[in-house]
Amino acid sequence: MTARPANAHQAQLLRLLRDGGPNSRAQLGDQVDLSRSKLAVEVDRLLETGLVVADGLAASRGGRRSHNIRLAPALRFLGVDIGATSVDVAVTNAELEVLGHLNHPMDVREGPVAVFEQALAMAAKLRASGLAEDGFDGAGIGVPGPVRFPEGVPVAPPIMPGWDGFPVREALSQELGCPVMVDNDVNLMAMGEQHAGVARSVADYLCVKIGTGIGCGIVVGGEVYRGTTGSAGDIGHIQVVPDGRACACGNRGCLEAHFSGAALARDAEDAARAGRSDELARRLEEAGRLTAVDVAAGAAAGDATSLALIREGGNHVGQVIAGLVSFFNPGLVVIGGGVTGLGHNLLAAVRTQVYRTSLPLATGNLPIVLGELGAAAGVIGAARLISDHLFSPA
Amino acid sequence: MTARPANAHQAQLLRLLRDGGPNSRAQLGDQVDLSRSKLAVEVDRLLETGLVVADGLAASRGGRRSHNIRLAPALRFLGVDIGATSVDVAVTNAELEVLGHLNHPMDVREGPVAVFEQALAMAAKLRASGLAEDGFDGAGIGVPGPVRFPEGVPVAPPIMPGWDGFPVREALSQELGCPVMVDNDVNLMAMGEQHAGVARSVADYLCVKIGTGIGCGIVVGGEVYRGTTGSAGDIGHIQVVPDGRACACGNRGCLEAHFSGAALARDAEDAARAGRSDELARRLEEAGRLTAVDVAAGAAAGDATSLALIREGGNHVGQVIAGLVSFFNPGLVVIGGGVTGLGHNLLAAVRTQVYRTSLPLATGNLPIVLGELGAAAGVIGAARLISDHLFSPA
Repeated sequence: MTARPANAHQAQLLRLLRDGGPNSRAQLGDQVDLSRSKLAVEVDRLLETGLVVADGLAASRGGRRSHNIRLAPALRFLGVDIGATSVDVAVTNAELEVLGHLNHPMDVREGPVAVFEQALAMAAKLRASGLAEDGFDGAGIGVPGPVRFPEGVPVAPPIMPGWDGFPVREALSQELGCPVMVDNDVNLMAMGEQHAGVARSVADYLCVKIGTGIGCGIVVGGEVYRGTTGSAGDIGHIQVVPDGRACACGNRGCLEAHFSGAALARDAEDAARAGRSDELARRLEEAGRLTAVDVAAGAAAGDATSLALIREGGNHVGQVIAGLVSFFNPGLVVIGGGVTGLGHNLLAAVRTQVYRTSLPLATGNLPIVLGELGAAAGVIGAARLISDHLFSPA
Repeated sequence: MTARPANAHQAQLLRLLRDGGPNSRAQLGDQVDLSRSKLAVEVDRLLETGLVVADGLAASRGGRRSHNIRLAPALRFLGVDIGATSVDVAVTNAELEVLGHLNHPMDVREGPVAVFEQALAMAAKLRASGLAEDGFDGAGIGVPGPVRFPEGVPVAPPIMPGWDGFPVREALSQELGCPVMVDNDVNLMAMGEQHAGVARSVADYLCVKIGTGIGCGIVVGGEVYRGTTGSAGDIGHIQVVPDGRACACGNRGCLEAHFSGAALARDAEDAARAGRSDELARRLEEAGRLTAVDVAAGAAAGDATSLALIREGGNHVGQVIAGLVSFFNPGLVVIGGGVTGLGHNLLAAVRTQVYRTSLPLATGNLPIVLGELGAAAGVIGAARLISDHLFSPA
């Protein structure tokens, strides 16, 4: 894809077709502030670029029936979501529907060269399976740390040694031969849940991702808010326990030190070794290590220690979210990421904290829910990121 | 003033003239995305409405010299800033320059009828002094609590019994015979410092107002962010001390319970009565009560207890701001409100907390400063609020 919309009206039409699927000219006309004749001109120009195509007759609204318009069916976006411990790669069509999705365990600390070799191999595999015969029209990449946006360069990523300053956007654009945009993985999860998940039609919301670390995607007026230096939403080092546990950042009592996938695994192993849970001890002996999945399974099996660990963690993250709800007054809070396997026990603890300590005016109609898309949120968000870029005036 | 701009271009021109003062057509042309001929059309239409006037010859840029354009010199905005313990009323011209400013002590708990009687009397006095002979073209009103915006109705304001649901906008619009907009006082302070104070040219910033209570104005992309139900920035009830002091909201350990103008006065009186400070005891005996002003004076006179109270308070508010800085990654933090009389001792404590505990990436180039405008910030922000409304397409 080389064509880009020539003006803001064309960009708006492309996004409407992406988000709403095939549409008649009449339906499009209802959604844009254009006269009938100007709309016809812009649609014809888009048809000329090949970005959109005519596609079957639209439902009758009286008068002459028109053709539906849709985005070119051959358009393909690549979504790559690099987590701390795994890589997700997916191919979508122009409506951001996932056509194929691969996941591979991978430690982000192996560095950008090794990680992207893996991601590119996965992309090639998807391509070879016939999902993107003509290659990709654009790619979105998520990395688990702050990103200087829009240059697409990770900055000072605490859990990603070797990534600081690596020109992700430039390097991948060269390898893939298509435009690339890079963002923080939490922002992509927020965009994914907004596009196809639980956050559709919410203007202002928070998406808290609890995986190996903890981060928060902030959406203001439907757009991701990234902050002055791209680090907005980095809530893992907000203090939750005065003089609490030592954190890798050098301070004490940070949220991440008290609750995250990594902290939970450590606490579970400690509990197993100290004889506080037969269930966790058995699992530790079997696997040699524990993860959040074991704690979830322990809780499901009725292990009181596992349940207590989840509750305590939920209290800590709920304490931070309570403050953010008072401050930001969101319309929705979504909890996503690896530890959502902890499910409703976690959610109950978070809700209790927020509803108890946030301002009643801010929590009145506030839903706090789990994400709907699981691992697909990140890759759909990545496809959304690059489509937002491509569906903007050049 | 009955005229409103007919389209977004005219609105943009009016705001440019408000923020930049008189301008030549050529200078205006540099700042808008309009052809020379279309610009001429829009300027001529604005001249016809009387909202702008031609005003003297512009500086030569080669070729024929043109007239400067400026907003009508007779335009007058009324800014009203209702605090917990006082009312500020000011008249501005269309460039939001303060032409006259009155302040009167008043307890907001006397209720809306009494407070607005007072505010209207002050407005009448300013008008009678010749500052607004033809009345006001619009008025902005700030109240110390959450506001349902744009209806202009206070909602569940904790320190304002009797105000819940009072139709401020409607009632004052009728009394004054002009359009009225209502907002939270902290949002107005943020807009004032942005228009004429320390926050000019910053896109994303936080304005923390510490008066009788504590609130935070949030500016995103140059616009005030109000949240889903208008309570964004209500940080006074974020917990700073687990199981800390009882707060009027029913929880324990809220920021406002540990530091605010009211909490500081209470702490100072306790210290005076407990014999921990001769300086404060002397002042308490003289005045019968203490305020933040006494603590500031005590600190300036070298009283260690006064200084310790300020430091401790600064630590508490700094702790909350540190979390918000990690979350929001602002380009600037402004501290304003009554307790800014505590000055650099307060600022030093806040800075210490933020620079010590926020993420280095978020604090790298982050200035934390005192507001520049003092009590004028609120009334200038109020004038800005109504001018934003009037300088929008009808």
